Amino acid sequence: MATQQFHAHARLQDGVKVAVQARQFSITIDEPEGLGGTDKGMNPVELLLGSLAACQSIVARVYAEQFKVQLDDFQVEVVGDIDLDGFFGKSGVRPGYSDIRYNFHIQSPSPQERINRFIDHLQKVCPVGDTLANTVKLALNNVVMNRQAA
Amino acid sequence: MATQQFHAHARLQDGVKVAVQARQFSITIDEPEGLGGTDKGMNPVELLLGSLAACQSIVARVYAEQFKVQLDDFQVEVVGDIDLDGFFGKSGVRPGYSDIRYNFHIQSPSPQERINRFIDHLQKVCPVGDTLANTVKLALNNVVMNRQAA
Repeated sequence: MATQQFHAHARLQDGVKVAVQARQFSITIDEPEGLGGTDKGMNPVELLLGSLAACQSIVARVYAEQFKVQLDDFQVEVVGDIDLDGFFGKSGVRPGYSDIRYNFHIQSPSPQERINRFIDHLQKVCPVGDTLANTVKLALNNVVMNRQAA
Repeated sequence: MATQQFHAHARLQDGVKVAVQARQFSITIDEPEGLGGTDKGMNPVELLLGSLAACQSIVARVYAEQFKVQLDDFQVEVVGDIDLDGFFGKSGVRPGYSDIRYNFHIQSPSPQERINRFIDHLQKVCPVGDTLANTVKLALNNVVMNRQAA
């Protein structure tokens, strides 16, 4: 077993703005005005797609050599569908993504056969892809209450 | 139907550094040195946890009024377990997160009963939480090849 733990932290700011941290890194998350925010950053569901695209890119770099693929450029476009009626409780549909599709843009002189095997492999071992395509045991561990006045 | 599409884009930089974009926003993603990177940003699996924590925070803000909960402070800590043997192909374990746990830190004078109902609801309607806890139809749409020399 080589189980490793990863961590993140979020703190709600004014409105729907959120300060997200992981180790020494910080990101501001917000919603566009059409979704009730002030548009100071990506929103969480865009960040989720960004996490997938970044993960696929890193997996591509890590495995290119093993599959003898020369990567002159590697880009990912991701698009996902959410029925917002789920979040707003207007219907019984799920609140999250039903479908996520991606395109790879690859600049490489390597044979197509190798590239095809490389793409198959990177999809199989991508940690974020696996997390999204399959179920995760998601659990509330604890609620820490502070009753003091702000 | 109120299906909305969200988008993200990633482009591999030097090493395992990745430039992630959604609309006008950019984030640098990297791996820590222990995982082969130069530690210039969160890594993708941290970003995924950050996306969950941000989403829960925004859902909290959006629904606090309806549940008559006064939110003086709302924070989320998330931790997730990945067996890295999956990614490195050393065993048959899945490459993604098996478990993700979170703690809510809430500063509020509102009655505990209301806060409990509020917490139940926010977990049910959180788009990223739903996306992670359940399966998503994840699909490669297209591979665009460029054969020109870099």
